[in-house]
Amino acid sequence: MKLKIGNFYKEEFIITQEMVNQFAKLSGDKNPLHINKDFASKTRFKKPIVHGLFSVTSFGKVMGTKFPGSGSIQVSQNLSFKNPLYPDLKYYVYVELIRIIKDKHFGIFKTQIFDMKNKIIVDGTGIVRHETKL
Amino acid sequence: MKLKIGNFYKEEFIITQEMVNQFAKLSGDKNPLHINKDFASKTRFKKPIVHGLFSVTSFGKVMGTKFPGSGSIQVSQNLSFKNPLYPDLKYYVYVELIRIIKDKHFGIFKTQIFDMKNKIIVDGTGIVRHETKL
Repeated sequence: MKLKIGNFYKEEFIITQEMVNQFAKLSGDKNPLHINKDFASKTRFKKPIVHGLFSVTSFGKVMGTKFPGSGSIQVSQNLSFKNPLYPDLKYYVYVELIRIIKDKHFGIFKTQIFDMKNKIIVDGTGIVRHETKL
Repeated sequence: MKLKIGNFYKEEFIITQEMVNQFAKLSGDKNPLHINKDFASKTRFKKPIVHGLFSVTSFGKVMGTKFPGSGSIQVSQNLSFKNPLYPDLKYYVYVELIRIIKDKHFGIFKTQIFDMKNKIIVDGTGIVRHETKL
């Protein structure tokens, strides 16, 4: 079934410090701001923060497995990191279809992460291709 | 020491299918295009491709640990996925400082991934804050 403008998907998630440590190993991004409590305590964040590029994998998860889902191919993504995302706290990801480019099977999606008080953490838009749903 | 416009960093990397499988687990993005050979063989890619948002962690690695390095904070990132990146093949990441916004300690970086024949795979720009180097 084709998606329509205004369709959206919303999901809560928690990224644990253990997941951040695993991501640091897997990606090679061992910036101490993410994995070293002492280092992070001396920064303006006071404690370790999640890698920006790890937090946004929540968009990939939603778009690749739920909305539009399996078969999605990511074409582009803009990301603006507005506020830090901390390990072990709950956030939610919000993905909304805002435009369709029919002949290319492209959907332009608003992609955002908020904390549980609705403060924006990551803002952005992504373009995804899906041959049957877009 | 302050970085200067035109400074760049370049590094080869390989993402294995095993790393892709681990990333799928860690991020929750189990889109079969990335982890299922049979599914991928029926797409125009013919074989599994690396998650776009995993391939670009190479930018995070460079900017978080090498250039500018430890202490970097990512402010924004634009990504355009031009061509598929396949597991177990060699690529290189290229990061170049193209503009500095001094009063904010912001650097605007060209961020790109190429294959070994210099075909562009991912294009983009990223803004990073670094209090001492920018």
